[in-house]
Formats: sequence, structure tokens, C-alpha cells
Amino acid sequence: MTETPDALSVALAYYHCWTGKDFAKAMTYIDPDITCDAPAGRLRGADAFRGFMEPFSRIVRRAELLAAFGDEETALLMYDTDTVPVPGAPGAEWHTVRAGRIVHMRIVFDRAPFDAARRAAAQDPS
Amino acid sequence: MTETPDALSVALAYYHCWTGKDFAKAMTYIDPDITCDAPAGRLRGADAFRGFMEPFSRIVRRAELLAAFGDEETALLMYDTDTVPVPGAPGAEWHTVRAGRIVHMRIVFDRAPFDAARRAAAQDPS
Repeated sequence: MTETPDALSVALAYYHCWTGKDFAKAMTYIDPDITCDAPAGRLRGADAFRGFMEPFSRIVRRAELLAAFGDEETALLMYDTDTVPVPGAPGAEWHTVRAGRIVHMRIVFDRAPFDAARRAAAQDPS
Repeated sequence: MTETPDALSVALAYYHCWTGKDFAKAMTYIDPDITCDAPAGRLRGADAFRGFMEPFSRIVRRAELLAAFGDEETALLMYDTDTVPVPGAPGAEWHTVRAGRIVHMRIVFDRAPFDAARRAAAQDPS
């Protein structure tokens, strides 16, 4: 028996906080020693994680949870987002949760349209 | 009561076929009228789906299922792959299953390293 919430509850609480623009509250679900495997590589620790994820959360205009499942220790989410530079930017996250906090996260999303938007903005800074 | 398999069983059977290089058998789990939302856009029908996914399956050197969940109608998978041009290329798939076949699939993966590998190969065709 445990009084800690199951992994899916933690994952969903985190998701609803960051998509709801409350990143400070979102961070209460993140372990200080989180490792996060993102497309650009591994991030170690809550500060590095926040430095990656909070700027993304600020450019999200719409977020829609497509699917969410979990068991005692892990959760798997897929969502769609519209962002300021890129509409239709889905992502998937696999969380490992211990004692109510996310200790590992693997994030999958397509960097290609963000790279293209960055290149276009650099060519036309108007 | 139904005699059709649940969505996760179908999703896993499909996964093990395509990662096991038996794409003909993998296609037996794909509905003829599948719609597949992939990073490059929407694919309609089994032929278009196969034209997208089978070439990818041929360049996969290693596949590892990271997480898989499902309910009666849907399944969500995340896997890691090493491919010929790109090592460490994870993907996530959200399946909707009817009567034992996948009728909708949303695939999320990062095109950026594949684009980079293609550009590098074009610059050095040796």
C-alpha cells in the first residue's frame, strides 16, 4: 500500500499545469534529479528541464490531449498542440514516476517544422 | 462480448511484424481505408500507408518497445529505434482499432536528424 498517487495522475497533473501556463505548479511534479531525453539530447536536473520545457509552454496556443495511459510507475501521453511558429505540432511523453514526482521523461516531437520556422524568421526578420 | 482482439493486441502484433521485417504480415493488421497522420501530413489508404512505413522498416537495425498501453478501441506505443542513417530515433504511435484492424494511426517522430542525414549524404555521395 502506498499513499502516493499513481503515475498517470501525476503525468496528467503535470500536463494540465504546463498546458495551462502554470509552469511553477507544473514543476512541483518534477523531481529535482529528473533526467529528460528530448530530441536534442539528455537534460539532467530540474533546472535544465525547466529551461527546455518552459519556453515551449509559452508558445503553445492550443493543447489537446489525444491519449493518456499509465500503470503504477509509468505513464504515456500523446497530445497535439498549435504553437505560435508551428500549427499542428504533436508530442508524446513517457514518464517514470516515483513518490509523486516525474524522475524520467522521454519526449518525442518533430523538430523539423520548428527548424524551418526559425530559418524562415531569420531570412525575413520583419 | 466480442471475438475481435483488443486494440493493444492488434497494435503489438503490428509492431512486432514491422520491426521483425515481415511487412506483408504487418499489413494484415492495417485497414484498407486507414488514415495515418504522420509528420509530413495525412496518408489515406493502405497503399499510401505502406509506401510510407515499409521503406522506414527496411532501414531499422534495432527496435525496442519502451511502453505500450491500450483500451478496447485505442492503443498508444512508444519505441526507440536505431536506423541506418540515424541512431536513436524514437517514435510514438496512437492507434484506433476496429474489428481487428488499425483504422487510424497518428505517428510522432523527429524528422530533423533524418533531414540532416539526407543533406549530409547529398553533399558527400561517396
